[in-house]
Amino acid sequence: MNNFEKVSITNEARSELHDLIHLTGAEISVNTLPQGGSVPFVHAHKQNEEIYAILQGEGTAVIDGEKVSLKEGDWLRIAPAAKRQFFASAKKPLKYICIQVKENSLEGYTMTDAIV
Amino acid sequence: MNNFEKVSITNEARSELHDLIHLTGAEISVNTLPQGGSVPFVHAHKQNEEIYAILQGEGTAVIDGEKVSLKEGDWLRIAPAAKRQFFASAKKPLKYICIQVKENSLEGYTMTDAIV
Repeated sequence: MNNFEKVSITNEARSELHDLIHLTGAEISVNTLPQGGSVPFVHAHKQNEEIYAILQGEGTAVIDGEKVSLKEGDWLRIAPAAKRQFFASAKKPLKYICIQVKENSLEGYTMTDAIV
Repeated sequence: MNNFEKVSITNEARSELHDLIHLTGAEISVNTLPQGGSVPFVHAHKQNEEIYAILQGEGTAVIDGEKVSLKEGDWLRIAPAAKRQFFASAKKPLKYICIQVKENSLEGYTMTDAIV
């Protein structure tokens, strides 16, 4: 495998990066829900932690029945078992990224993993 | 640990999310290099794959001596051993996220890990 790979993501409704750039430690999707739209189902995970970042717009996440407001710059960690669903606001599309990683898989990081 | 945590990231030069929202499968930083600025060192990793997303601006990554142009919407996977350094363009700041995950740690994902 190459030492690096690059892809450019524009304005697709959903792009999945794992296969595009051969990720081995995460799956990452880049998503846009139209205004008033939502992911059409509630879901949870078996072993993956999900991390969401809101890139543009406004919306709501419902997590285990709790409503969480979303705006640009928000980041969320959601535990595997939590039941989640995402909604764009009625007025603006919601652009967000979703990062799936195996819960508890990270060992060292930054100063304990870097070689400078 | 709570089933979810949220944080709002605004325009800090660098924010590190691992401790802020108690990530267990990744470290994620949100970074802004000023125009003409760069990360002041070359680095590699022991066991972490890094995934970069360019959120705003333009710049260059130098990866094992190869120059890679960067613009909004670009995503990069970089293998642990690759030597990397990031530069903002002379004209625009470079806002990017960096995701550290343990190489080869992902098992199932999306349809094989989700519970709908």
